[in-house]
Amino acid sequence: MSELGFALLGHGFMGAAHSRALHALRAIDAPATPHLVSICGRDRSALEAARARYGWAEAVTDWRKQVADPRVQVFDNAAPNDLHAEPTLAAIGHGLHVLCEKPLGRCAAEARRLKQEAERAGVVHMCGFNLRFLPAVRLARELVERGELGEPVHFRARFLASSALRADQPRTWRFARAAAGSGAVADLGSHLVDLVRYLAGEPVRVSAATRTFVAERGGEPVDVDDAFSAVVELEGGAMGTLEASRAAGRRGNECAFQLDGTRGSLSFDVDRLNELELITERKQARRIDVTDPSDPFMDIWWPLPGHAIGWGDSFVHELRHLLAAVAGDGSVRPHGADFEDGHRCALTCDAILRSAETGRSQAVA
Amino acid sequence: MSELGFALLGHGFMGAAHSRALHALRAIDAPATPHLVSICGRDRSALEAARARYGWAEAVTDWRKQVADPRVQVFDNAAPNDLHAEPTLAAIGHGLHVLCEKPLGRCAAEARRLKQEAERAGVVHMCGFNLRFLPAVRLARELVERGELGEPVHFRARFLASSALRADQPRTWRFARAAAGSGAVADLGSHLVDLVRYLAGEPVRVSAATRTFVAERGGEPVDVDDAFSAVVELEGGAMGTLEASRAAGRRGNECAFQLDGTRGSLSFDVDRLNELELITERKQARRIDVTDPSDPFMDIWWPLPGHAIGWGDSFVHELRHLLAAVAGDGSVRPHGADFEDGHRCALTCDAILRSAETGRSQAVA
Amino acid sequence: MSELGFALLGHGFMGAAHSRALHALRAIDAPATPHLVSICGRDRSALEAARARYGWAEAVTDWRKQVADPRVQVFDNAAPNDLHAEPTLAAIGHGLHVLCEKPLGRCAAEARRLKQEAERAGVVHMCGFNLRFLPAVRLARELVERGELGEPVHFRARFLASSALRADQPRTWRFARAAAGSGAVADLGSHLVDLVRYLAGEPVRVSAATRTFVAERGGEPVDVDDAFSAVVELEGGAMGTLEASRAAGRRGNECAFQLDGTRGSLSFDVDRLNELELITERKQARRIDVTDPSDPFMDIWWPLPGHAIGWGDSFVHELRHLLAAVAGDGSVRPHGADFEDGHRCALTCDAILRSAETGRSQAVA
Amino acid sequence: MSELGFALLGHGFMGAAHSRALHALRAIDAPATPHLVSICGRDRSALEAARARYGWAEAVTDWRKQVADPRVQVFDNAAPNDLHAEPTLAAIGHGLHVLCEKPLGRCAAEARRLKQEAERAGVVHMCGFNLRFLPAVRLARELVERGELGEPVHFRARFLASSALRADQPRTWRFARAAAGSGAVADLGSHLVDLVRYLAGEPVRVSAATRTFVAERGGEPVDVDDAFSAVVELEGGAMGTLEASRAAGRRGNECAFQLDGTRGSLSFDVDRLNELELITERKQARRIDVTDPSDPFMDIWWPLPGHAIGWGDSFVHELRHLLAAVAGDGSVRPHGADFEDGHRCALTCDAILRSAETGRSQAVA
Repeated sequence: MSELGFALLGHGFMGAAHSRALHALRAIDAPATPHLVSICGRDRSALEAARARYGWAEAVTDWRKQVADPRVQVFDNAAPNDLHAEPTLAAIGHGLHVLCEKPLGRCAAEARRLKQEAERAGVVHMCGFNLRFLPAVRLARELVERGELGEPVHFRARFLASSALRADQPRTWRFARAAAGSGAVADLGSHLVDLVRYLAGEPVRVSAATRTFVAERGGEPVDVDDAFSAVVELEGGAMGTLEASRAAGRRGNECAFQLDGTRGSLSFDVDRLNELELITERKQARRIDVTDPSDPFMDIWWPLPGHAIGWGDSFVHELRHLLAAVAGDGSVRPHGADFEDGHRCALTCDAILRSAETGRSQAVA
Repeated sequence: MSELGFALLGHGFMGAAHSRALHALRAIDAPATPHLVSICGRDRSALEAARARYGWAEAVTDWRKQVADPRVQVFDNAAPNDLHAEPTLAAIGHGLHVLCEKPLGRCAAEARRLKQEAERAGVVHMCGFNLRFLPAVRLARELVERGELGEPVHFRARFLASSALRADQPRTWRFARAAAGSGAVADLGSHLVDLVRYLAGEPVRVSAATRTFVAERGGEPVDVDDAFSAVVELEGGAMGTLEASRAAGRRGNECAFQLDGTRGSLSFDVDRLNELELITERKQARRIDVTDPSDPFMDIWWPLPGHAIGWGDSFVHELRHLLAAVAGDGSVRPHGADFEDGHRCALTCDAILRSAETGRSQAVA
Repeated sequence: MSELGFALLGHGFMGAAHSRALHALRAIDAPATPHLVSICGRDRSALEAARARYGWAEAVTDWRKQVADPRVQVFDNAAPNDLHAEPTLAAIGHGLHVLCEKPLGRCAAEARRLKQEAERAGVVHMCGFNLRFLPAVRLARELVERGELGEPVHFRARFLASSALRADQPRTWRFARAAAGSGAVADLGSHLVDLVRYLAGEPVRVSAATRTFVAERGGEPVDVDDAFSAVVELEGGAMGTLEASRAAGRRGNECAFQLDGTRGSLSFDVDRLNELELITERKQARRIDVTDPSDPFMDIWWPLPGHAIGWGDSFVHELRHLLAAVAGDGSVRPHGADFEDGHRCALTCDAILRSAETGRSQAVA
Repeated sequence: MSELGFALLGHGFMGAAHSRALHALRAIDAPATPHLVSICGRDRSALEAARARYGWAEAVTDWRKQVADPRVQVFDNAAPNDLHAEPTLAAIGHGLHVLCEKPLGRCAAEARRLKQEAERAGVVHMCGFNLRFLPAVRLARELVERGELGEPVHFRARFLASSALRADQPRTWRFARAAAGSGAVADLGSHLVDLVRYLAGEPVRVSAATRTFVAERGGEPVDVDDAFSAVVELEGGAMGTLEASRAAGRRGNECAFQLDGTRGSLSFDVDRLNELELITERKQARRIDVTDPSDPFMDIWWPLPGHAIGWGDSFVHELRHLLAAVAGDGSVRPHGADFEDGHRCALTCDAILRSAETGRSQAVA
């Protein structure tokens, strides 16, 4: 079994999630063993603390060193949105395989460039839509593929947080268009757009409204959305609603979706991520505890069902999938989102913003 | 305690619901006792069976006799949509108090005329939005009024049925614009529009899409919608999504809503109509079993909590409220919807249909 | 369709429940129409208020008049436990059909006499275990009968209230052995014993403990139990646990059970009485919304599923079943509990009390 | 930060769980870093596979080498029950700190010897009741300690599996008294006994029944229980029911408990291990999502709530606690169970078996 060298850019929330997943993979059957070569950040003392806590061999303050390091085969980008493009393009330029957190770019144009370069270079490219790697979400996809729900008819999803509710919260990079691209659309909505694409079909038209509830933070204007609501029309005729908010009172990261097909319906809620609710007979909702060793991704864990996994374990599945793609034929599909998915997601996000501005429904370019 | 004479037009689903509620009121504290004078329908033998089953004194085949009957004080219209306006206007003309099932009219213009005539005549007028009379829904309203949720931010509601899923189902009046006005919008969506108004505020702008999944039934065209999805923007800045469908695979009359305010959130699902979920602390969802004698409408039932009521009991509360309005000052508010509510609801329904046709957001006139 | 004259003894909680059910049956298909002849109580002014509120024709203060009234065919005993035997025996003596609230007697000996006299007289006799008439409970029984759960293995049930938690609550008749027979055992436990018999099999041996948490109320000793916990062993080898309490902090009439068989398991909770949870595949719990017109007892209500019934409607089903028995062949089975069920239940209740006293497991006589 | 050398005996289910937790601790703040020195098993090829998969430095086939290895400071016993005593005693003899899986001994006498030797040697000793390390269970304990539930009144717990349902399953060591001590009592019941002790108080008296549903497997007699049901009476007057089964049809490792106190009640189910239901107001059940960084054990994970942990993470908390005890004052309390807890648990398990044999309630010695 080979080792693969990883370099990680960013040591915030996503940096922790990716680091822990890489360690977990050292006690789980995997096609290769990750070697944690270097972690990168700007603040030297915070960086060294992160290096020690997250078990990386080296800490570097310049990602250019990482992408040029011959011990590194995979560049893992967990940095803020405005650091997605340049370092990832450089890594691609060095022939590294790349995992980039969502949203792939701040807008569709930026995402398209990443996609084009990654495809041209022939490296493995993956966009961090980790929800695809929850067993229940993957089971939903399999049920759709097997036709158990019939044709998609309706899809609805919401991602509700309350992080922007208080007006006195600081204007972090998430409230600035230059750094983030957009607000709830890019941060939370991108997950929902990926889910609708993964489970119900490609959006072709969007009607949306957005809101910025707090216009100014710390003396500076907020030039991104705090929330959006959208009607999406899908290829094939299905319709959906998507909603994300950073100002939904007292909701703490509630992310849930429902899909109705011609033969059945399903529901999922991240708060109960080991469960999938399936309705294939009227007024009979089956709560499937997706913890059986035969369930998606679950063969690597425990010999008996009833042993829930956690949210962080989605990254274990995601990174294990990346290892398989690198060790194997280079394809990260069918489970994972690649840069094409990242680009297509951005096209719908852009259409949502355009519709909100114009008051007209917008075709997804 | 006085008696009030009732005349009922219609003996279908709603006719049964109203009849049973009137009987229930004979064993419950109420400001007046209903007397079931006459029931009206077109098919004489079905009508006589309904009269016997539902315990009415007389059966008549012409509603004109009912509205002119001096023993009748309240005209209860539970007929199909195209029989809402004319008989109700005639009853108003005779000075009768009126309860008309939703939607009040097939379009806003029809609803406006009913509202204007009822107000001019000074009779008690009520539109049958029975969901307002579920204790949990009323509790939601009280929580909003007391400010426990802060200012409304988001509202979402769905009403999902599967009654139109099969292409071989007959083209009943519900699939014809002339009889029904519209499809899922009028039948299911009107409930959702009333709920958003009751709980979150007046819609001022709407962006929507509609679908008709089966274009023809029994050789005749279907000229109404089978489903709609809408973004609604409310007075004061809140946003919402509304969705109704008659083609949501295997959903059996699922009606649910959520309201997020600046200080808290709540959720309700008709399938568990005795419960209200309230979130006022992050990640703590209180499931309130709304069965305490101190809960809205519940003082008339049982001495101890834990004794669920049924969907049909919403009509007991609704008709008891009507009795109080007739016996009292003539106002059906704050609990009940009156014809003004019926009219305002129709304005939003019309805007939904216009937006779907034009592909542009529409102001609610 | 014939009329049947009813006489009701008692106008408390159960008196209200029975009265409302009888009125409801006037707007529902039933084999006979109940006529509410007379209601009986001791306090004349409370009785007259009850008569008016619950819609009875006459109020009488002596049940002896009721049982001798030629207009009466059914004697409905909703009085406290120490008024179960004598009036019911008198009614049987007059050849009346009888419905007696649970527990049938204060002890097995008293229950046996009622059973023997009713059988000897050949009247219809029914014991008021209303939970059997909840559609979900009846569906549970049908699933057992059809063998879908295999052979019973485990049964567990609890009935938790908090009515006796406070030491300053008055010593009503429910705290006196002479009036009530026993405490939580007779009042709440009898329901659980009936359920285990109805769904899992006859108890043959019992090991139990009881507690009286407040020894004295209002200066008088409490000589009944506030709570019990029991292991029951059933004919055929299954085992179960039963628990009832009047001192379970802040529980408000929580009644729930689970049955595990060799092929499947089910769960029920009165707080969600329209639902039955069924497990026939590992880690897949089907929540059945028992509201379809094809579900037990539901054909009389609404044309579509999704319309929940209430707790009070169990009495509508119970009394409709009684009407059918009286109008038909005299048998209240298979749905209803008769006096033999009341007697068998009392045998287990007595064994629970004996085991708690002796510290030894006890055979059910 | 120091390193601590671990030796693991056993590479089955528990061996995997402990190994993965030790790796996870390399990317989490902890008082010491575990070094995975050696893993031990009997089958050389399975052992080597386990060593590689679970990331241990060496594989040895004799635990005597492990306990004598100077690089080892902690002996982690995840072997079958009949290998708990001798290797653990040997490790204690070498002055190693010890973690032993539950049940500590096959009977109370064996557990007592382990407890006495560990206390005499002054090493850190811990018994693997991992459920204590679920945040929701720990929160339950804190609520009890803070008096929010008042005095305990009732406790009920069940652990339901279906692993022994089929008669053709092989007679593993779990079906043999010599190897396992007892059946469902030792394997599943020990968890429940630890929970009742942790949350409600010490059992003083027990009444129980047991069942062995399949008397013979693979031609050999089954001399342990497949299931038990017990009433437990606690110090201070509370009562409880405990039930465990390996033959509960289609239940897949369902473990749940409820505690009722004089001021409130709580419920927990391992299937939804991130949630605790708390009732402190009648008919208001608060579902607490125990994922906030301020919740027990959760400060080491993510910056925001709503990110569920998994069952396996209980071992991360358990082993981190052990690291703290070793690095600190030597005490594993208040979170962890030590060998005294293991011994006290065994006393109640023995009493359950004695009561079932004798048909009499038994004092817990």
